[in-house]
Amino acid sequence: GHYIICGFSRTGRQIAMEFQAEGVSFVIIDSDFESVRKAQEMGYTIYQGDATLDETLLRVGIEKAACIVAALPSDAENLYTVLSAKYLNPGIRAIARASTEEALQKLQRGGADAVISPYITGGKRMAAAALRPQVMDFVDGIISGTDRQLYMEEYLLEPGVCPVVGQTLGQAKLRVQTGALILAIRRTDGNLIGGPTADTVFMPGDVVIAMGTAEQLRALNQLLGPISSKKLRRPKKM
Amino acid sequence: GHYIICGFSRTGRQIAMEFQAEGVSFVIIDSDFESVRKAQEMGYTIYQGDATLDETLLRVGIEKAACIVAALPSDAENLYTVLSAKYLNPGIRAIARASTEEALQKLQRGGADAVISPYITGGKRMAAAALRPQVMDFVDGIISGTDRQLYMEEYLLEPGVCPVVGQTLGQAKLRVQTGALILAIRRTDGNLIGGPTADTVFMPGDVVIAMGTAEQLRALNQLLGPISSKKLRRPKKM
Ligand SMILES: [Ca+2]
Ligand SMILES: [Ca+2]
Repeated sequence: GHYIICGFSRTGRQIAMEFQAEGVSFVIIDSDFESVRKAQEMGYTIYQGDATLDETLLRVGIEKAACIVAALPSDAENLYTVLSAKYLNPGIRAIARASTEEALQKLQRGGADAVISPYITGGKRMAAAALRPQVMDFVDGIISGTDRQLYMEEYLLEPGVCPVVGQTLGQAKLRVQTGALILAIRRTDGNLIGGPTADTVFMPGDVVIAMGTAEQLRALNQLLGPISSKKLRRPKKM
Repeated sequence: GHYIICGFSRTGRQIAMEFQAEGVSFVIIDSDFESVRKAQEMGYTIYQGDATLDETLLRVGIEKAACIVAALPSDAENLYTVLSAKYLNPGIRAIARASTEEALQKLQRGGADAVISPYITGGKRMAAAALRPQVMDFVDGIISGTDRQLYMEEYLLEPGVCPVVGQTLGQAKLRVQTGALILAIRRTDGNLIGGPTADTVFMPGDVVIAMGTAEQLRALNQLLGPISSKKLRRPKKM
């Protein structure tokens, strides 16, 4: 499935850059002629239209899309777009921007899978830069950006596919074999095990969060899901 | 040294919440009477005044402050405040908000130690939520928030104080002794070692980035800097 970005403003442009860097397939929707021209100049695929209309969403293949990102100027437009997208494709993942705490809650109630408020995120980021500058630099460096050495990746341990299910971390020897560091395991019940130890057991449906170079994470991907799964994205080659 | 927040708007309020949760000492500056009243209602120490004026900065003890966060409405005010703060206290750490890429560069040239653009940060966060939802949840959960189980912390290895300097990670046995996970080491030359292994040697001046519970990170703090250092902040008790 492809990705859809609604709104090619400053936020939308940043999202397009990140998607481009990851090598995912995406299309942009924007109603403004100037934005459309700018996106085309930058080599992006963009469709001129109103993202709140079903007709526009159908035009960019909403039924087959994996994810829609609503970064339109108003909270109302973002909510409308999320509702339309979820109606046309109930399995789609919807990310939305909210400008206020109130809008954040409304978008969550409206079915958005993740809601980001630039004010809240920006404030948290500024506080973290004040309190823990090195941690912040470190996290920024592994979360995004095109010149990364280190990445964080998530892996779903599918029952019947993943050979380490049922083994302990000590038995699986993932660190020795790949060099990647296992940071945490999210159990199917939502429980998070941070810094799992040698006697932690991998369970079916676990999501493993790991850190490493692109090469290390590709090696880990091979060990955790040797039968190629569409659910596992690989960091692109550098 | 205390912290100074300039501007008590949505971003400023988020920063105050984060500082409060960390238990750091801070004062807010805002020129608007309504904002001052609101901050006082919330129990914060706030000074009504114009943060771009030396007089105001001196009034809140700029000379002894550790850090100033400029979150005023305009980029021009933030730049002016950073320049004033750095003139009155060259050792102060200055964090600023920028609304555009151009302002970001100007603030960096003006001496800000870190500049955050809510649009860029928000866009990166939205892209990450689309691409790696579990990684994002995990990172958000350890970077900020008041109900955390896991934290990330940074430790400066001071020569003559830190007993593990010169030892390898294997020799220091920090994981076994504390439970905390060493994620990375930042060398004094800026080089970042992600996922250091048992034979990596701790060097004087290294900054160690670790993840763990508050208890684990306090134990690590004791091992890395047994003589209490002001540079090492501890996660507050939960
Ligand atoms: Ca936008
Ligand atoms: Ca503000």
